[in-house]
Amino acid sequence: MRVLITGVDGYLGWSLSIYLAKHGHQVAGIDNYSRRKWVGEMGCQSAIPIARMDERLITYRQSLGQNLRFFKGDLTDYNFVLNAFKAFRPEAVVYLGEMPSAPYSMIDVHHAVWTQTNNVMGTLVALYVIKETAPDCHLVKLGTMGEYGTPNVDIPEGFFEIDYRGRKDRMMFPRKAGSWYHQSKVHDTHNVEMACRMWGMRSTDIMQGVVYGTRIDEMDDNPSLATRFDFDQCFGTAINRFCAQAVIGLPLTPYGSGKQKRGFLPLRDSMQCLRLAVENPPTAGEYRVFNQFEEVYTVDELADRVAKVGSKFDLDVAVRPMENPRFEEEEHHYNPDHQHLLDLGYQPTHDMETELESVFRDLTRHRGRIESRKEAVFPDIRWDGSRRQSEYLS
Amino acid sequence: MRVLITGVDGYLGWSLSIYLAKHGHQVAGIDNYSRRKWVGEMGCQSAIPIARMDERLITYRQSLGQNLRFFKGDLTDYNFVLNAFKAFRPEAVVYLGEMPSAPYSMIDVHHAVWTQTNNVMGTLVALYVIKETAPDCHLVKLGTMGEYGTPNVDIPEGFFEIDYRGRKDRMMFPRKAGSWYHQSKVHDTHNVEMACRMWGMRSTDIMQGVVYGTRIDEMDDNPSLATRFDFDQCFGTAINRFCAQAVIGLPLTPYGSGKQKRGFLPLRDSMQCLRLAVENPPTAGEYRVFNQFEEVYTVDELADRVAKVGSKFDLDVAVRPMENPRFEEEEHHYNPDHQHLLDLGYQPTHDMETELESVFRDLTRHRGRIESRKEAVFPDIRWDGSRRQSEYLS
Repeated sequence: MRVLITGVDGYLGWSLSIYLAKHGHQVAGIDNYSRRKWVGEMGCQSAIPIARMDERLITYRQSLGQNLRFFKGDLTDYNFVLNAFKAFRPEAVVYLGEMPSAPYSMIDVHHAVWTQTNNVMGTLVALYVIKETAPDCHLVKLGTMGEYGTPNVDIPEGFFEIDYRGRKDRMMFPRKAGSWYHQSKVHDTHNVEMACRMWGMRSTDIMQGVVYGTRIDEMDDNPSLATRFDFDQCFGTAINRFCAQAVIGLPLTPYGSGKQKRGFLPLRDSMQCLRLAVENPPTAGEYRVFNQFEEVYTVDELADRVAKVGSKFDLDVAVRPMENPRFEEEEHHYNPDHQHLLDLGYQPTHDMETELESVFRDLTRHRGRIESRKEAVFPDIRWDGSRRQSEYLS
Repeated sequence: MRVLITGVDGYLGWSLSIYLAKHGHQVAGIDNYSRRKWVGEMGCQSAIPIARMDERLITYRQSLGQNLRFFKGDLTDYNFVLNAFKAFRPEAVVYLGEMPSAPYSMIDVHHAVWTQTNNVMGTLVALYVIKETAPDCHLVKLGTMGEYGTPNVDIPEGFFEIDYRGRKDRMMFPRKAGSWYHQSKVHDTHNVEMACRMWGMRSTDIMQGVVYGTRIDEMDDNPSLATRFDFDQCFGTAINRFCAQAVIGLPLTPYGSGKQKRGFLPLRDSMQCLRLAVENPPTAGEYRVFNQFEEVYTVDELADRVAKVGSKFDLDVAVRPMENPRFEEEEHHYNPDHQHLLDLGYQPTHDMETELESVFRDLTRHRGRIESRKEAVFPDIRWDGSRRQSEYLS
């Protein structure tokens, strides 16, 4: 199948380009290297060195025996995207070309506006380009479990049947996001659902949990095929930051009570899920939602796991909770469904510790790169719009 | 109270600036004359002549004995908005500064992107400016009943209690909008709700029905205080287009079956409701939703009312249904709540015929202005993105 990946230079996008080629697909990609710039703006870099795109493309051809057709440009530029689609004629698009960080979107009004403009308008442009050049093309859109927030009821996959004052309907499950970034994904969700309803487009909207891991087998341990691993306060998730902290001897810093629950899955499982979505498109006009994660942990449990694996690497890992810079519920019900991908054949790895060991092996080789940017791991972007370093709580 | 009206040069904004001054408030306004440009882009003009802003401001002062403090600029320009807020220090903002037309947003990708950027980012900028300069300021945000779409269940005012798999929560009622414009309002709704939840802001989000009418008593029949009346396919609502058609002897053209139901209210009632919202602010952190309309009619019933009133003006009014250029449900359940404004003291006029008579009196005086632009009333913007004039169905 011809699959176009937007954001192909990013953490998931680059991995997916390799994974799909190894599984018999033809891949093209779009990027403008934004992720490298954002992380640079945060005073940080990927812990694992990544090659420049020109080198990536050469190695890709050598290792995978096919070209990755690469288009450099901005996804909000309609004419650029139109031309890329006309040139490649994708049968599926995996839309990974959005700014993915909640704290980055909360820095100030400029970052808030930029995030929502980039994310929402990029996807809106893609909807028009698909309609105009490839109406049967399947849009695999990446949302986030964070769109739902933490309601006091179970979370279904996108839709639910309601019985209200004696009448029934199947409706979108209400969204309650917790950052301008998460809201941008909610806006996407509404726009994409409408395009399917009105234009007969087909889309899979993936509400993704937190993805972690440094590699997939298909990278063959080739440094030029490696994908990035971020640990700064914006682009490193809690699990990434914990691993980076452990490796350089800093205490792990859960925010607040540490009782926040989230869904997680390893990078290799994320690849498996995205491939399943691509290879099993919905029917024309169908907008379907997959909740994509494997296991739910509290942030405290996560820290314990990381500490435990760290001890296998002779690291003495402490846990020191830190003031929560975010506005979020710390103790809440959390029981989201995640059946749709299992129905398609998803086989979870179910082994966080093995995965974390692999992360530790990779990170210890690059300890110096983390050491040299360790200030970036500490949060100072606060949800109230101010900028002040969080203190340790104990 | 010091009230800032964004979009003060528009249909509702201008009327409200007069109404609030007559009721003892100090008013400032922001605009960049976008509405005049959009209607010009559609090859049309207001049926009722409206004065330029400089003339409006002079007459305002003469008639109302106070200045309307006017700031000309773009609501997505943070520094401009910030300075206007610092200068005027509003206690309430009535946000009417959005592009209000569904068909205009459906013209093509550029209009879609522009609409969502202008509307959503303008409101997002306002949220930041309020937080930074006037955190107690009450944001009266204008949404639309169209945010809800036409679900098969009753529509509450913004929120509903759900009982799902044995657990309960109070959640936002799901939105299902039918154009990029309506989606922009849904996006606003989500952004504003989050600002209240996180930043302790206060907002009233008004899901407004279709407003009609040419005047309010407070305009004192002064031509320089008149507000606009649009009848083109984008900025004229069904009721406006019907009145314009009747006045120049064209048949009224309901789209499709004509069985679509909507909520309506006269301009003078809309003013009353907005004033009630302004004068009764919510508490800090409260995000409240008012469904604002008076009576529900089908489009056919609307046409019949207009025809009936037309006959009192010796007009022979025919009704000829036209192909529906929109994608919408034509036969549907529709029973939205609208109690919150009544609880605040809203006293509906409940008299569409009297209101329509006043519209006919005003429009017959300007028949020539409608005649000279009559092509603009016929729809050719289609929801599938194409452009083709709708045919009569009989």
